[in-house]
Amino acid sequence: MSAGHAAYDVFRWVRPLHRAAEHVVATSLEGTPVGLGGRALLERLDDVGPQTVPQLAAWLGVSRQAVQKVVDDAIARGILATRPNPRHRRSHLVEATTDGAALFRDLHERELDDLTTLTRGIPEEDLRTAARVLEQLTTALHSR
Amino acid sequence: MSAGHAAYDVFRWVRPLHRAAEHVVATSLEGTPVGLGGRALLERLDDVGPQTVPQLAAWLGVSRQAVQKVVDDAIARGILATRPNPRHRRSHLVEATTDGAALFRDLHERELDDLTTLTRGIPEEDLRTAARVLEQLTTALHSR
Repeated sequence: MSAGHAAYDVFRWVRPLHRAAEHVVATSLEGTPVGLGGRALLERLDDVGPQTVPQLAAWLGVSRQAVQKVVDDAIARGILATRPNPRHRRSHLVEATTDGAALFRDLHERELDDLTTLTRGIPEEDLRTAARVLEQLTTALHSR
Repeated sequence: MSAGHAAYDVFRWVRPLHRAAEHVVATSLEGTPVGLGGRALLERLDDVGPQTVPQLAAWLGVSRQAVQKVVDDAIARGILATRPNPRHRRSHLVEATTDGAALFRDLHERELDDLTTLTRGIPEEDLRTAARVLEQLTTALHSR
């Protein structure tokens, strides 16, 4: 098998894995005040701090309108809040509220527990290699 | 870092990689008689032989209506054809035409060449490990 075939096998599994993971995460969010979109925003804000709606939209690869809708809903639920943006008068910064940050920590902890169970039997070294390869492939595709 | 964190890192890259890959594949299909949907059907039929629309829909995780639309378009373009299904009188089997099969072989060969270039610098062994891990994770998620 060539490197091309090996890479192709990686790409073949990306879509089914993405779908299966989304399904499991969506199920685990039932009964919480966020859905997949809200959870994705909380993760991003936890990673990089306050962001504008256009920045969040660019990161997720969805429309600003779609992000705005999730943001508005999360604000109504007390999960996110906006504050003035020192750099752009018109584009407010979105940030997690104390409740939102606590919710994400809870969700994330549960997910890590779940993943530890799920990946029992897969060597940790292999998981690390896989994560590194996916990052390398993503970077390579983006720089084309 | 725990195994849970390592697995989480894999999942974090699945969505961005999926998006980047779809974008590249869609671009490479410009000027060909198929889009992403048609290409996905050709790949599946190449893998497992003739399938019904419901089988294809289940595999792709999309609605039967969505698959039917792509199938109808591909039939109009001479890429796919249907034939009677010995097992179900009402659910015809979809198969690639000679032209469709040749088109997929061409596309696939070009993709493999592209991937060989793209993955230069990533050890083939790591690519194999990544593909195996993604398959294991997908299987583990599906069996929950």
